[in-house]
Formats: sequence, structure tokens, C-alpha cells
Amino acid sequence: MKSAGLTVSIDNIGNIRGRLTSPHATAKTFVMASHIDTIINAGKFDGPLGVLMALDLVEQLIGAKTELPFHIELIGFCDEEGCRFHTTYLGSKVVAGSLESAILNAKDDGGVLLKEVIEQNGGSVNELSKDAIAKQDWLGYFEIHIEQGPVLYEKNIPVAVVTAIAGQRRVEIKFTGEAGHAGTVPMYMRKDALTCAAEFITAVEEFGNANRNDLVATVGKLHIPYAASNVIPGEVICSLDLRSADENKLSAAYDVIGEKAESICSHRNIGMVWTPVQQSKPVACDKELIKLLQGSIVDAGFEIVELVSGAGHDAVPVSDVSPVAMLFVRCFKGISHNPLENVELKDIAATIKVSDNFIQQLIKKQTTTLPDKAK
Amino acid sequence: MKSAGLTVSIDNIGNIRGRLTSPHATAKTFVMASHIDTIINAGKFDGPLGVLMALDLVEQLIGAKTELPFHIELIGFCDEEGCRFHTTYLGSKVVAGSLESAILNAKDDGGVLLKEVIEQNGGSVNELSKDAIAKQDWLGYFEIHIEQGPVLYEKNIPVAVVTAIAGQRRVEIKFTGEAGHAGTVPMYMRKDALTCAAEFITAVEEFGNANRNDLVATVGKLHIPYAASNVIPGEVICSLDLRSADENKLSAAYDVIGEKAESICSHRNIGMVWTPVQQSKPVACDKELIKLLQGSIVDAGFEIVELVSGAGHDAVPVSDVSPVAMLFVRCFKGISHNPLENVELKDIAATIKVSDNFIQQLIKKQTTTLPDKAK
Repeated sequence: MKSAGLTVSIDNIGNIRGRLTSPHATAKTFVMASHIDTIINAGKFDGPLGVLMALDLVEQLIGAKTELPFHIELIGFCDEEGCRFHTTYLGSKVVAGSLESAILNAKDDGGVLLKEVIEQNGGSVNELSKDAIAKQDWLGYFEIHIEQGPVLYEKNIPVAVVTAIAGQRRVEIKFTGEAGHAGTVPMYMRKDALTCAAEFITAVEEFGNANRNDLVATVGKLHIPYAASNVIPGEVICSLDLRSADENKLSAAYDVIGEKAESICSHRNIGMVWTPVQQSKPVACDKELIKLLQGSIVDAGFEIVELVSGAGHDAVPVSDVSPVAMLFVRCFKGISHNPLENVELKDIAATIKVSDNFIQQLIKKQTTTLPDKAK
Repeated sequence: MKSAGLTVSIDNIGNIRGRLTSPHATAKTFVMASHIDTIINAGKFDGPLGVLMALDLVEQLIGAKTELPFHIELIGFCDEEGCRFHTTYLGSKVVAGSLESAILNAKDDGGVLLKEVIEQNGGSVNELSKDAIAKQDWLGYFEIHIEQGPVLYEKNIPVAVVTAIAGQRRVEIKFTGEAGHAGTVPMYMRKDALTCAAEFITAVEEFGNANRNDLVATVGKLHIPYAASNVIPGEVICSLDLRSADENKLSAAYDVIGEKAESICSHRNIGMVWTPVQQSKPVACDKELIKLLQGSIVDAGFEIVELVSGAGHDAVPVSDVSPVAMLFVRCFKGISHNPLENVELKDIAATIKVSDNFIQQLIKKQTTTLPDKAK
């Protein structure tokens, strides 16, 4: 960032921020960002690729001596994954001004507090709020990220415009039946928690398939305490993960699946504890920015693919204060969070071309809307 | 046993054996037995109750100075559960003469060999075969055991006659799909190993219910390696336990369920590895002895309940060399292998009454069939 000519700083939470200033007095700030942290045993593209590509775009603008109608801030967010403190978006929440003070007391697995780590790394917990970009100063937010899913790979297309980031409901469900000897309890006397869970899982999949254009529904975890091959399972604990870009559909799906679970349990005389674990609303990307991205995709010679992001991104907290936009780059077979994660150079080039079109269009559009006195 | 007047010894594997000798030269041996080992964290009735009740029956015979047409051997088998060496029926296999020599090299979790333990406890590995009762010397085998299931408890009846010990097929099944992000892989692109397993488990239960008079079918274990609530399961490993008193029906059920699993997997494009883990044939109890037991139940004033034992018992290896018979005593709610295991005193009394009728009938019957010269 320094050698590209940006004014670089590391803020109190640890975000790396490079600023390119517009000469216009009333200019707002356009943020281009992604995250530079990874999960453990990660690939090398999830996060860092978006920061490096944004840097390339900014270098081109500097090289072309473009007169900017807005400031550009290029940010490498310090912690999106939440590996150490099990809480996501630490970096982007600070920039959006929404880091909850309670999070500062989060502990890592060794018992060290987040606020201690911030101070040890040279940051000041009391200065965190000064690192936020005020709501009125945001022009927009743009992030490039790998898809982390197989759609572009299957469609054989390098890049997609993200229309929304899915909202999510996560539930832990405990089914309680009655454990018994697999050889001595007749079929008609059983209260099998696993066959009950199996009927539920089948129903979740059926519902997901019937609503495949609107949502995804997944049971990812299933645990039978004290399981043995000769014991009828007395208890099963499983997860439910529901995601949709449409809050109404997400909420309706949550209710329908919950009622289905109750009806299956009541029919089988099985107890159920339904514990909501996590809930986030869908984030819609900005319609104007989407339109610009679509035009840029067409201009670059590609087919427009619109995707809903099923995974969360830094754009989620930023959406509270700014219009947001994202491009997804195709990744190999959709594999992510895995050392096998891969992106081809030609897809990076294609996405740079689209992004460059986008930035040029945005500059043109913003220049024409600048107040006369500032021009 | 000693104070009751039996000739007592501990054999080389560790069975406690008390003998009451008939005066008749051609007398065969009638064995009354159960096991005195338990699982870890066991109840106190599974096994020992049968030995103590048999001792009570023998004491009554001695007290009444009954002239026996057969020898009686009362045995407390040393290891039926197989906790230490993970191989069942050690004691009864020695008495039946069928202990495989390979088992002597079985190791406990600390690496100690079974043959070492036998020698340390004062037994001689080379003398084990001398502890067998020769096939031509067996008159029969009789065991009293708790039901370990809920049928008598639900029917409110103290005792049942066992008609057979179920045969068993145990299988480990691995379903292999494709792991993926629960948010980014659309429903139609998924290869979910868990929804496949769920459909299989539902089919197993359905088959079991449709054939409830002939068998039981159970999936007791299910494991998802690397499970996470936001990951579509790529692999699921589960168990299948099938039991039936009828070998033809057991074998047919095994085939039908295997074909069903294949068809579910093929429909879903999921890989399957089907690994047979264990297989045992059903053991039929002796028809003549069953008839005697039924008569004894009626004489004691109870309704005849016939049960198939879903659990294995020492009667299984003994059935290779002798007619076998068993009575089940009601246990509280069918709970077993658990400190909550309980049997009421009145049910023990009822079963003693039935057993005493049975022994008296057997003595009467055998006395009339003794060769004249021996009378």
C-alpha cells in the first residue's frame, strides 16, 4: 500500500488502512476492502485475494492520475473469521462503529481477553470508536471475495454479482426418547430418538428442495450421547442451519420447520427442546451499485450471474452505515476453508476487468453529481 | 454352594462349579447356570440372580432328600459379558468344549493376554479342555435370567418361557457424499451423506415395524466425521443391528435392507461401504423342555408368555452340545445394564415356584425312563 502511494495506518483493532484522498472538499469515502485473517488450516484466497485485487485497482487509478470525486479507503480487515474470540467481523465492526463493548471482554481459549490483546498489540481500547467512519461520510463499500460455493464453477463463468447476503437462523434441537436394548425392546414399544431425528432430517431436506430458489436448509451436526450399536438411541442432539436472502421467507421457513418437528415428535411421543442459537437478517446489496456492476460485467464480455451469498462477509456490519456491493470470483469446485482452495489467474484477471469498469463508471457518475462549487 | 452340600471346584477358566451326584450309574448331567460377571456400572441382577436362584432350587432338592435320576451341576460362569477381552461366553464355551484356542491370545486394554490371566489366577491353559462336559453326558441346560426388556413389565406378568435366542447380523455402513458449505451450496447441487443416512434409518424402522412379529432392527450409532453446523455432511458412519429367532427371516431381512440401502444411495449418487461386523444364528430352545416349563407355569397359576431373547446368553454356546431351556424374570421397566436394574422379591418367588415345578417334573420324567438295571 505504501509503495502504491497510499497513506497507510494500522488502527486500534489492527485493520490495515490505506487512504487515497480526493481533492474535492465535499468528497465522501468509498471503501474497498476484504479481510486478511484466515481460519486454521485455511486456503490462501478467502479474504486476502480481495484486498490484493483492490490494491491493484487503486494502483491503476494512481498510475492513470485519475481525479477522484471521492476518497478511497483500502482496508485489510484484521478479523472477519472470529477464530480466536469466536465472534466474527471484529475489524469491520470497528470501521462501521458497531463493535459492542461487551465483545472486548471475550476470552480466547487461553483465557486472554480481547481488550488485553488489543493493548498488547499497540492499540488503545478507548480510541476504538475514533476508528469508525461516520455514517454521513460513507459513499459506498465494495468487496471482492471468492464464491466459496460451486455455482460459478458449475456454470463455467468467472465472476458474479452478489445481490444479497443471506440471513440465517441456527437452532440446536434435542430429541429425547427412551434408551433400550436393541435386542429386547420390541419395535412397537420403542421411543427411538434417532429414527425421530431421521424423519425430521428428511423433512428438512424435503422442505429445502421444495423451496430451493429461496433458501438452503442443512442439518450439519448430529450426536447420540452414549451411542452403542446394540442400544436404541434415547437422546439425539442435532443442528439446523437455515439461510435465505428474504427475511419473510426465512422467518416462515423457520416456523414451518419448527411446527414440522413438533408434529413428528408428538406423533412419536418423543420430547423436544428447540434452542435458537444464532439469528441474522439478510443484507440486500445496493440496487444502484448492483446495476453498475451488471453493466461492468456485460462490458467485460461476461454473462450476468446473480448470487446470494450464503456465507457471511464484512459487508454485513458495514451495511448498517453504507450501501454495499460485492463481486464473487469463481473458485475451484467451490472448495473453501481448506488448503485445496484455488482461484485461476484468468478469473482474477476477468474480475479485475469488471471491477475496473465498475470503478470507472462510479467515478464518472459521482463526478457529474458533485456540487458545482466543488468541481 | 459348599454349605448347601455340593462338591465345589473352580475350573481352569474360573467357573465356580458345584456338583450333586445321582446314585444311578448311567445318569447324565443336568446343568443349572448363569454368569457371575457383570458389565461396568452394572445392575446386580443380570447374571448372579440366576445362579442364586438355581442354588436355592438345589438346596430344596437336598433338603427334601430327593433321589436324583441325573447329576446336577450348578455353575456360576466366570465371563459371559466379555468386558475385559471383548469376547463373550468365555466360561460357558469352556464347559461346552468350544473355546477357540485363538481367543487365548486376546489382549485386555492393558495388553495382558487372556492365557496369562488364566495362569495368574491359578488355572492351567493346557487343562482347559478337561473342564468340558462331553456331549454324550449332557441331559440338558437350564438358565434363569432377567428379561432385560419391557415385555413382562408391560404385561404385568412375573415370568416367561424363552422359546429361542435371536440370531443377529451387525453391519457398519459408511455413506460418502461431498462436504460443502451449508450457506453456499444450493440444494440441487448437494451430495449430503446425512440426509441419505436419514432416509436409510427411516427405511430400516419402517421395515422393522412392518415385520415386528419376526424381528427387531436398530441403528444405534451414527457418526459424522468433522461435523459442523455450517457444513453439509460429506461422510456418515452408522451401525445396523438386526435380530430374529428365524434364520430365514433374518437372512431375508438382511438382504432386503441391504438392497434398500443400495437403492437409496444410487438414487442420491452417494457412495456406500457395507461392512458385516458380526453374525450369529438363532438358537432354538428345546421343545420338550419348553413344554415342561409351560406346564410348570400353568401349575404355578400364571399365564404362559413366550419370549424370544434378543440378548445373547450362555445358552448359546451350550446349545451346540445340549438341549437348552430358559426362564425370564420380569425386571423393572425392562431396564438393564444400569444400576437402576431391579427385580421384585415376589417375581423371584414366582419364578422359583415355576422352576421347582419344572425340576420336579423333569425328575419324575427321567426317573421313569431310567434303564431297569440302574433303578
